[in-house]
Amino acid sequence: MRARDLLTDFPTVTLDTPVLDAARLLADQDLPGLIVVDESGLPFSILAGTQVLQLAVPTYCQDDPALARVVDEAHADTFLHAMTGQTVRRALPGRPHELPVTDPDATVLEIAALMARTRTPLVAVVSEGRLQGAVTLQTLMDRMLGS
Amino acid sequence: MRARDLLTDFPTVTLDTPVLDAARLLADQDLPGLIVVDESGLPFSILAGTQVLQLAVPTYCQDDPALARVVDEAHADTFLHAMTGQTVRRALPGRPHELPVTDPDATVLEIAALMARTRTPLVAVVSEGRLQGAVTLQTLMDRMLGS
Repeated sequence: MRARDLLTDFPTVTLDTPVLDAARLLADQDLPGLIVVDESGLPFSILAGTQVLQLAVPTYCQDDPALARVVDEAHADTFLHAMTGQTVRRALPGRPHELPVTDPDATVLEIAALMARTRTPLVAVVSEGRLQGAVTLQTLMDRMLGS
Repeated sequence: MRARDLLTDFPTVTLDTPVLDAARLLADQDLPGLIVVDESGLPFSILAGTQVLQLAVPTYCQDDPALARVVDEAHADTFLHAMTGQTVRRALPGRPHELPVTDPDATVLEIAALMARTRTPLVAVVSEGRLQGAVTLQTLMDRMLGS
């Protein structure tokens, strides 16, 4: 069993996608994360669901739990909407050291090791200069346990 | 909106649960992660889905992509089954610095910051010495975007 046997079509966002639209895509389709593509359609970054959420959390709240606690409930409820107009490009932190990207020949073990190492429940599969789709943690687990 | 308004019942595993059963629970119920409880029923660790997968990936493959590549397809396909009999206790790495655990009063922003900081799409809610349930990334996103 190789990456090509586990491929699913996977929606992408671009650097110019509004953060709110990216969050909505993740929530509406119950995705494990998002693939951010560059101008050539190749993965620029791959974000776990928690990292998509992180795009919208004010930086001062991410590092210090005490600061998140002082924001009152009414403002806390609407923090996501404070991102209106903000794009993925502006909210994205630096590119990670290693992207969870592989080729169609990758084995189940290679995909699993890549997901574990990058802590991303989603691996993009690229070949012939094109994004071919993705392998999700759910698909990988289902196929491994079903076999 | 507070953690208590977003609570869902969430299955738990113990340190003595076999890794294969933990993986099956995650896959069958399409969970974002697992709560590992100690003898008193309180969270000992909280694992993202990728960390549950990591329990089953041989250590030598996690750090070095080249080593995962040399394992042939037939052996790679069955690596999860090589964990038969292994318990969560034996496979679990050291306890993380910060567990995604909060109280029923936590606001949406506190929960989001905690998920982002710990990179876990799942926060356990504890009060009065008991695990009350969990807030998932999916529930949080749905409620924030729906409001």
